[in-house]
This record gives sequence, C-alpha cells and structure tokens, in this order.
Amino acid sequence: MYTRLSELAKGKNFPLTNGLLRMPRLVMKFGGTSVANVERIRNVARHVKREVEAGYDVAVVVSAMAGKTNELVGWVKEANSLYDAKEYDVVVASGEQVTSGLLAIALQEMGVNARSWQGWQIPIVTSDAHGTARIVEIDGSGILESFEKKKEVAVVSGFQGVHQETRRITTLGRGGSDTSAVALAAAIGAERCDIYTDVDGVYTTDPRIVPKAQRLDKVSYEEMLEMASLGAKVLQVRSVELAMMHRVPTYVRSSFDDPADPKLGTLICDEEDIMEQQVVTGIAYSRDEAQITLRNVADKPGVAASIFVPLADANINVDMIIQVVSDDTTTTDITFTVPSAEYERACAVLNAHKSEIEFRDLQGATDVVKVSAIGVGMRSHAGVAARAFKALADKGINIRAITTSEIKFSVLIDSAYTELAVRTLHSLYGLDKA
Amino acid sequence: MYTRLSELAKGKNFPLTNGLLRMPRLVMKFGGTSVANVERIRNVARHVKREVEAGYDVAVVVSAMAGKTNELVGWVKEANSLYDAKEYDVVVASGEQVTSGLLAIALQEMGVNARSWQGWQIPIVTSDAHGTARIVEIDGSGILESFEKKKEVAVVSGFQGVHQETRRITTLGRGGSDTSAVALAAAIGAERCDIYTDVDGVYTTDPRIVPKAQRLDKVSYEEMLEMASLGAKVLQVRSVELAMMHRVPTYVRSSFDDPADPKLGTLICDEEDIMEQQVVTGIAYSRDEAQITLRNVADKPGVAASIFVPLADANINVDMIIQVVSDDTTTTDITFTVPSAEYERACAVLNAHKSEIEFRDLQGATDVVKVSAIGVGMRSHAGVAARAFKALADKGINIRAITTSEIKFSVLIDSAYTELAVRTLHSLYGLDKA
Repeated sequence: MYTRLSELAKGKNFPLTNGLLRMPRLVMKFGGTSVANVERIRNVARHVKREVEAGYDVAVVVSAMAGKTNELVGWVKEANSLYDAKEYDVVVASGEQVTSGLLAIALQEMGVNARSWQGWQIPIVTSDAHGTARIVEIDGSGILESFEKKKEVAVVSGFQGVHQETRRITTLGRGGSDTSAVALAAAIGAERCDIYTDVDGVYTTDPRIVPKAQRLDKVSYEEMLEMASLGAKVLQVRSVELAMMHRVPTYVRSSFDDPADPKLGTLICDEEDIMEQQVVTGIAYSRDEAQITLRNVADKPGVAASIFVPLADANINVDMIIQVVSDDTTTTDITFTVPSAEYERACAVLNAHKSEIEFRDLQGATDVVKVSAIGVGMRSHAGVAARAFKALADKGINIRAITTSEIKFSVLIDSAYTELAVRTLHSLYGLDKA
Repeated sequence: MYTRLSELAKGKNFPLTNGLLRMPRLVMKFGGTSVANVERIRNVARHVKREVEAGYDVAVVVSAMAGKTNELVGWVKEANSLYDAKEYDVVVASGEQVTSGLLAIALQEMGVNARSWQGWQIPIVTSDAHGTARIVEIDGSGILESFEKKKEVAVVSGFQGVHQETRRITTLGRGGSDTSAVALAAAIGAERCDIYTDVDGVYTTDPRIVPKAQRLDKVSYEEMLEMASLGAKVLQVRSVELAMMHRVPTYVRSSFDDPADPKLGTLICDEEDIMEQQVVTGIAYSRDEAQITLRNVADKPGVAASIFVPLADANINVDMIIQVVSDDTTTTDITFTVPSAEYERACAVLNAHKSEIEFRDLQGATDVVKVSAIGVGMRSHAGVAARAFKALADKGINIRAITTSEIKFSVLIDSAYTELAVRTLHSLYGLDKA
C-alpha cells in the first residue's frame, strides 16, 4: 500500500539534496464534522500525533467547523442575495482559518510542534473564478522547510487559495478541502493523502439503500472518478481527478476511529496495485437528473446542432442523448438529460428556439434517476451491460435512456424504482456481502 | 473642524501628482456593537454612503461582530490555556475578516463600490509581538490606487496586521481597531478619522456617575491621552498617541445616530483649534490600582533602587510614589501604586527581596481608586490642584497619594469615596451641565 521512499521524488518541489534520507511525508485531511468543536479537534490532533510518532512529516488540511460555513454563507446572503463572489470568499474562508489555528494549538498542547498556514501564506495559487476557483500552482517549499528545520506539523486551511495578481482570497467551492489535500500531497511529494471523513471508506454502493454493501479495500482512480461523477458523495470529483493525474494514493477512512487503533478504509490507487479486480466495482445513483424529450423533430441534417448549441451557449450540461424514429417517418424524437437544477432553464432555452429546431412538443420528467455500474473489468468483459438490461426488465423496470463508456454504463429510470434497481444490480454483479 | 484640502499632503503616501484636485479622504471606524449583526452592518453602510455622497474617498475600519472575538478566544483557551500567541492571532483575526467582507457586500447592495482589505493585503506591517503587536508601517498605496482608479470604498479589517519577515498574521490587542483606524488615516493622509462608538462623544466625566456630565465639543490630543491613560475607556491609549503624533483630527461619535441626520460628537484636535479652553476639561477615575506601603525602610542611599529595580525587572509598572519619614528617624515609609492585576505578583517580588530592601512590614490595599483632573489650562493656572485637596478634605475624603504633571493631577483615595470625589471635582471646576 505504501510507496517506497525512492519513489517520492515524483512530487513537485521535492528537494532531494545531499542524498540524506528524508522522513516520508503524509497529508491528512479532516472535514467539518471531524472538527465540529474543540473536543473533536483534540481527537484529530491525536490522529495526527500517531502519524508523527510513526515517523511521518505531516501536513493536515482542515475544513471549517461543522455549521460555520453555513452560518457565514447565511450572513452573506442576508447582506445581499446578489453578492460579490470576491467578498463571499473573504467571509467564508475565515471558517478554515479558525480551525487551522485551533488545531495547531491543540497539537502544541500535546507536545507536537505545529503551525497554521493560510492559502495565501503557502501560497496555494488559484484562478480568479471566485467561489469555484481552480488550483493553478502550490509552492510547497515553505512547508518543506518547516518540516526540515523545525519538525513542524503544517496545519493548512483547506478550501482556500489566493489569486496571484490581485492577491485576493479565493475558495475552491463546496467540498474543496479534498482538492486542497490531494493537490498539496502532490506538491510536497507525499507518500499518501489520507481523507478522514464520517464514513469508513468507499462502499460498493450506498449502504443506506443496500445494507449488504461492502467497503472496498482498494479502488482504482478511474473507477473512483466515475463513481464520484455519477453520484457517490464520498469525495469531490475534482480531488479524484487530481489524485489520478498526479498518482497520489488517496486513502478514505473514518475520523471517528479510536486514534490509538484506527481501522481500515479504502485506498484509491493505480489499477495495477489492485490484485483481485471485480468486473463491476460499484453501483452509483444520482437523483440530480431531469429528462427532456422533443417530439417530432424534423429529421434532417443539422437538427442536433440546432438543439444542443443553444443549450451549450447557456452553460447547460447535456448528459445522455438518444434519438429514435417517431410515429411518422419524416420526424424523429430526441431524448436527453440535464442536471435537475437546470431543468427549467433548459426548457426556456428550447422553447425560445422552437422555430429553428422545429419540434412539435416538449415533454419533460424530473422524477427520474440515473443508476450506474462502474468497473475497470468491463474493458475485458463483453455483455456486462446486457446482463443488467435483462435483470432490470425481469423486475419490470423500464429503461428510459442508456449511456455507456469503457468502464461504466448508466441507465435512466423512474425514480420510484431507485432502490430496486440499485439492489438488483448490486446482487447481479456479486457485490453483496457474504 | 475640517482641515482644508491644501493641508492634506501632511499625511504619508499622498501622491499630489499633476496638480489635480483630489477628493478629500476620510477614515471611519466602527466597533463590535455597531456591526453586531447584518442589520447593523447595513446601518453602518448607510453612514458610509452618506460620506461618499458628501464627496469623500472613504476607508472604513471594522471590528469583529460583537461576541465573536470572545467566542474565538474561548475556543483558543479551551484548546490550550497556555496557547501560542501566533495561533491565537490566526484564530481571532478571522472575526474582523468576516465583518470586512460583509460590509463590502452591504455597500455594494446600496450601489456603493467597495472591497475588503485584510491586514496582510494592505499591508499593515507590525512588530512580531503577537497578541499585542505595534504597527511599524502601513503602505497606503494600494488603497489610494483603488480610490483613484475604481472609486472604491476600502473596507479594512481592524485589529490585524502582518509581520514582514514571517508573513504571519498579528493582532494589536483588545481595542486595537481604534489604533488601526488612526494609523490608516495618517498613512492615507485622511482629513479626519471618525471613531463611531456606542456613546456620542467624550464626556467631562463618566455620565453613569455624574448625570450632569457634558459632552465635550473638542478636546486636545494631550488631554485625551491623559484621560485615556487615567481611566476613560472611550479610546485606546495607543490610538490617541498616534493621533497626537501624526496630528490626525479624530472625531468620536455615535453609530446609533440616524445615518441621514447624524449628531455632533467630540473632536480630538490640536490645542490651538480649541477656542474656549477650560482650566479643567475632564475628571477621570481608575479602579485598576493597588497600593503598596513598605514600612520602616532603611533611610539610606540606593534604597529606592533596591525596591523599584526588581519590580521593573518583573515588568510591573509603578505609578504614584511617595516617601515619608516614619515614626523613627533612621527609617522611612515608601508608598506606591501598581496595576491591581499585578498586585499579588508585586508583593511576591518585594518579599523575595526583603533582605536587600530591609523593610519591616509590607502593607497593601486593593480597595483604592485613582481620581484625576485633566486640563491643558493647568499649565497657566496656579493652585488648581490645591483647590481640589481642600474640597476633598471638606468632604472628609482622605488622600493616600498624589501625583501631578503639567496638565493633570491624580489623587489616590478609598474606593468607597469614588462617586463623591468625582462629583465634587466635577462641580468644583465648573463642568456640571447648566
């Protein structure tokens, strides 16, 4: 599970001077519920101390105390519902600042050297897309120097960055602390990034729906990326992308474990590092879908463009698309899905372009769900999706749309059948716990 | 009351380029109760908008929302009672950051251009005495550029600074936002610094003790400095020192006035700008005193040093000192005062040096109060203090110690007589409201 010391130099900014043996580095990330009050922050400090005593140089990335970000966002909206994203960032970034200082203090109280780092101090340089900024560059040299000279744990405010030219505070969007952690791990050449959360790992599916869901010991970057994109909420999509891009082994585990006796979690790693590969690794679902069907669209070249270009111009993501011949032979029906939050806006855009598109009727449905099966094994196994279609049909579940890719397939169904469909697929691919 | 445009260039960093007429500048400061919630922050925004419409380029300095600093300090102490002052600063400085963002948003909602500035962004460079840092330098150029190019109100987090070498966040100590405001006014060459608070100005004495106390229209820097040092709580001593040093006219006024119709406050200004000067301007009192008397100290050269050098080494400020011949002729009694918070420690230091000092007995009293009368008119009027001693004696008030300076005198009395002494002196010098 652990990469060897000699492999560490893959990370940026890793000063391999003098040929000295360096301490391996670890990034640990704790979310809002794990730092909800000072007592829990002290518990986080115990987890950190354990890793320091195990010989790691540790950087800890923290979120705001649970509830604080909502309180701050509430004030911002009360001040002005059409708020300035730059000032929103100033207000909400303060939550992480508080946690970073408190955790540094709690660590010192336990005899562990520690200091806090804000995004602008490191710096974590981002784009200027305030509220949803992307990390451009992290200068890990300050933290590495503090590891080397002071043996200090670096307590880093997650979610925050700074724009290089304006020197204004930015934030990465909700859940951005996961991204901070993985990016920092890449920047300082960490052996691993441990994401401590309120669940003990990544499951074959949502255990609330399928009690027989199993914790996965390992899952590949590619699979995790699909799972996160398709509805699994355990990690932010962007953080998985970064982990995959920089090959940062990322370990999802529970912060509520006894710090003296932590349990196993799920390691997100290279496909090659996973010995026993299932055909299907997990079943995800997303209720965040809406279906739009345009009836009797003129069946002529360029019609798809007339539909999807205006939607793209309005920044609406279209996901599944199917086209079928309709009841007469000169027209066709086109069905596709959009995020449910964009449903009203998508309908408005289409109706505004009705004369160019030449459709007879717009039919929509928001009570739909996308159920997906993910597994790198699909690459080498034919008929994986076909088995699913049959199993769902046997249960009387009507499939409204299908999309497939190399390592996953998704079906759009009525939301009333969500649980039944997820359980059916979970059993079908042998994921139920023994 | 307002200085003329031509006089503005006295401030630092004032770019008098091209001979263009520039907007006069104003610094406005609002404390915690004035920004306690979003509704009050909106009220602050109305005050700011009024001054923008009056033609000022405005920098607003804000404190944390009332109660927030205490909440943050509480968490710090819960995490570790012997906390690291560097991390304390990280945690508590977040309170001002929140207010600055919210006020910028509230101003924008009213159609006023505004942006927030944190201490490190300006920067407000301070010493590294975390928790009680002193401002070393303020670079006003960024704010002046934003005035000029964007017509933006600068919303500045008070209380915060940054240390130049370490780039770590510092704070100025409780009440430090007043100091931030006055220093910023000096740095950007502001015409005036308006301190909005929960009282409507500086009074001849505490109105809770003397209902006949009057608001002063004007008070000189020197007098205000003495008042603040001697117990008046309306402004932090350091902010008055800065105002005096940089000659920043500082206006104390109420934030609870109707923003459309603000009332008068108190202008702290040059002595020469005050037409009708009273002999005594105000009566202050401080309960923060403790008296120590050393009985039968050997009356020989060097004895004072043997007492006061150890106290100075222990960082204990000694204020009033009197020495009287004691009941025998070879020894003397020495009485002095220390801050009541240092009383226990001072006694311990003295007892530890008992053999060098050679005193027979240490007597202490903590139920004492220092009552002071302040007025620049004392310079040219003899017998001002003598009249007080007689008036107090007539009321049966025993004076334990006296100190005088050019523009004030103080008496130490039993605390039971506080109200009586303050009222007596307030009447004596003609300060009662008609």
